[in-house]
Amino acid sequence: MTSNKLALFPSSTAVNHQNHVTINGHDVVELTQQFGTPLYVYDVETIHQQITSYRQALANYSGSTQLTYASKAFLCTALVQLMSSEEVGLDVASAGEIFIARQGGADPASLHLHGNNKTSFDLKEALQAGVGRIVVDNIHELDRLAEMAAERNQSANIWLRITPDVAVETVHAYTVTGTADSKFGFPLDQAEAVAQKLLADKNSLVKLKGLHLHLGSHFHDASPVARALGRLLDLATKLRDEANWSFSELCAGGGWGVRYHPDDPPMPIEPFVSGLITAVEQGCRKRDLSLPQLILEPGRSLVAQAGVALYTVGGRKVIPGVRTYVSVDGGLADNPRPALYEAKYTALLANRATEPEPETVAIAGPFCESGDILIQAVDLPVACPGDIVAVPVAGAYQLSMSSNYNAALKPAVIFIEGSEIKLVQRRETFEDLVRRDVL
Amino acid sequence: MTSNKLALFPSSTAVNHQNHVTINGHDVVELTQQFGTPLYVYDVETIHQQITSYRQALANYSGSTQLTYASKAFLCTALVQLMSSEEVGLDVASAGEIFIARQGGADPASLHLHGNNKTSFDLKEALQAGVGRIVVDNIHELDRLAEMAAERNQSANIWLRITPDVAVETVHAYTVTGTADSKFGFPLDQAEAVAQKLLADKNSLVKLKGLHLHLGSHFHDASPVARALGRLLDLATKLRDEANWSFSELCAGGGWGVRYHPDDPPMPIEPFVSGLITAVEQGCRKRDLSLPQLILEPGRSLVAQAGVALYTVGGRKVIPGVRTYVSVDGGLADNPRPALYEAKYTALLANRATEPEPETVAIAGPFCESGDILIQAVDLPVACPGDIVAVPVAGAYQLSMSSNYNAALKPAVIFIEGSEIKLVQRRETFEDLVRRDVL
Repeated sequence: MTSNKLALFPSSTAVNHQNHVTINGHDVVELTQQFGTPLYVYDVETIHQQITSYRQALANYSGSTQLTYASKAFLCTALVQLMSSEEVGLDVASAGEIFIARQGGADPASLHLHGNNKTSFDLKEALQAGVGRIVVDNIHELDRLAEMAAERNQSANIWLRITPDVAVETVHAYTVTGTADSKFGFPLDQAEAVAQKLLADKNSLVKLKGLHLHLGSHFHDASPVARALGRLLDLATKLRDEANWSFSELCAGGGWGVRYHPDDPPMPIEPFVSGLITAVEQGCRKRDLSLPQLILEPGRSLVAQAGVALYTVGGRKVIPGVRTYVSVDGGLADNPRPALYEAKYTALLANRATEPEPETVAIAGPFCESGDILIQAVDLPVACPGDIVAVPVAGAYQLSMSSNYNAALKPAVIFIEGSEIKLVQRRETFEDLVRRDVL
Repeated sequence: MTSNKLALFPSSTAVNHQNHVTINGHDVVELTQQFGTPLYVYDVETIHQQITSYRQALANYSGSTQLTYASKAFLCTALVQLMSSEEVGLDVASAGEIFIARQGGADPASLHLHGNNKTSFDLKEALQAGVGRIVVDNIHELDRLAEMAAERNQSANIWLRITPDVAVETVHAYTVTGTADSKFGFPLDQAEAVAQKLLADKNSLVKLKGLHLHLGSHFHDASPVARALGRLLDLATKLRDEANWSFSELCAGGGWGVRYHPDDPPMPIEPFVSGLITAVEQGCRKRDLSLPQLILEPGRSLVAQAGVALYTVGGRKVIPGVRTYVSVDGGLADNPRPALYEAKYTALLANRATEPEPETVAIAGPFCESGDILIQAVDLPVACPGDIVAVPVAGAYQLSMSSNYNAALKPAVIFIEGSEIKLVQRRETFEDLVRRDVL
């Protein structure tokens, strides 16, 4: 049913008298005429609303809080500006993301550098830029950072990333990160030893400011995070008691899921955040710990719903008794998630929004790969060449993972800001495809 | 064992007195010092050898033959030049690939345009460039092409892509393309009707020159292709008998696999090509058909073995009783195949090539994703930060599917041409990351 699908789109989505989908009053079919397809449209209002939901939920915490956006979900300079204007920090994962953040005018102090294998170059860029926190993942990194801080005579404020050996149930194994068998972070016992050593060295320029965990991506139940936070509070208590550490910052990571499909359960932000708050407040009370600042790092749940991907139908292939394929002009290259994670999406025809949907079809992309199927089964009107397919919840981990497979051009990105339409990333050109080629 | 691994590298690979891997005499460790990591190195001689293997095997065919490279495996202008110098045609899949081919100076007549959903723009570019063959996939495309050819008063030479409903056993379901349930091509009965109609229209500017099939990617047994070719010969016979068609071109596609891992069986080209030749020659004799030109479209088997990916080790994480992770500075972004297809690779330390390999480790990339594991288990010397990991058989479907996830920069690409080292694609820069951003 179209109405079930429309509920997944940005909150300002409606259908106009031409039966076209509109976002904040803008006819998306007209946008495709103006900017071509594949086209990615973000409704900025929806991002603001998600930020507000997090802020309101975090307001119930008795200590101070910080909201930080996990840039890996989607990053461009316009989005940096948007996050900065809301005083949302940025979780960055490479020198490249530091560069983009700075291009967008982000305050370097609001950046946190993550990653299981930061290069010396990443660390140097972070120190040079004055990145707020470096989330140290392993002992090699800590040694290298200490050396570089000493060389530069510059202090480095860090968190330790802890792998608390707690599993969350995510949609795909690739997105579980907090179990013992993980490339990420310090096991608890090792973290303790490392922290003790660090705190014992009063001359070290590496300053341990807090602890960090991140259990995985796109999970639907916060209770494992609450359990894992308890283990971090145990560690903090020990370090307070034995090394006189004043524990001041606790980052619970991100990873809260979103609804991609009408069959997915609702994913309200408030109960998720409340669960974490309760875990930290009760946990600190029980251990007689003073409340640390609580930092959250949502990515997907801030931007996914704001984004809509628009494609043009090229043709239909009916295989009687087997399947009908509707081919569109994007797929694996701009959205590898179905192939990578068996991610399930829905879609509707943006130019025939409320028509009956009598047939179930597969939506295929144009790429030379059988795995290039955006949607295995979705109900649609009988789609014809020229129809516009709109895929909701396209705002996260699509463009940031996009490729140039089959020499596909990365799509244009539009921000809808109230009455304004802004092209924030132009479509790639053929010249871009050969810019690195040396002849 | 290192020697088993070295057999997967380009044929000119050796180990020098410093225990470094060399390709055609060039120390790859020195190359990483000069060009940084991740670095992709191609040995041009190995590509020439693979081309020669195909040519020699095709020489046994009694009719004429054509060798065409499936560009989607990896394309840059230097590779276009290499293929052109060998008179190898190019199978392209978009207007973007036509552009790159022309930038590299390819003869447009040597290009074949593929794709299950070519846009009008793709078709227009193909006509304008004078692409040799358009491999028509479906009826929408045929109608559009006929219209465009008429408008331009320009003839278009086509093949029909047939889906013969024959499965090949490939390594992953994403790479099977020739079964009935496929987004690609015409089912046999529909192909017949379409061809009959086309041949009946003597005024049509769309000229049916041949038939095409492609059963899938990375298969190890050619007998299904031989069987499928029989079905195409049946169709050709029917069209000769009923529509007086002079069948002149038969394309058997590509898809022949390669050895990625010492455990994989040898994949010699000669028996594969021989099998196809026998199928076509015997099939034609049986049907009293004159021999068509036989076209093959290898991609992976021409370039995969020529390519080596080089990474720098950043750290080790030992999880006692569970696993040891060795982290390197590339992975999911430059090589999504392990995450997409569960592709299995091997690796060795290029700077300690023949040392004993006492431990089994996982090779992890630096990206914020648990799925970013290049190799689940490989024997290595105890790797230290700064060691160089070399992954062989890295020449196909890695860079062509690469992304900028976590703002990763696409790697530099080097061609080794005998004594010469040529930088053919420079590493991306931070400026490249924001080139499309509009502020």
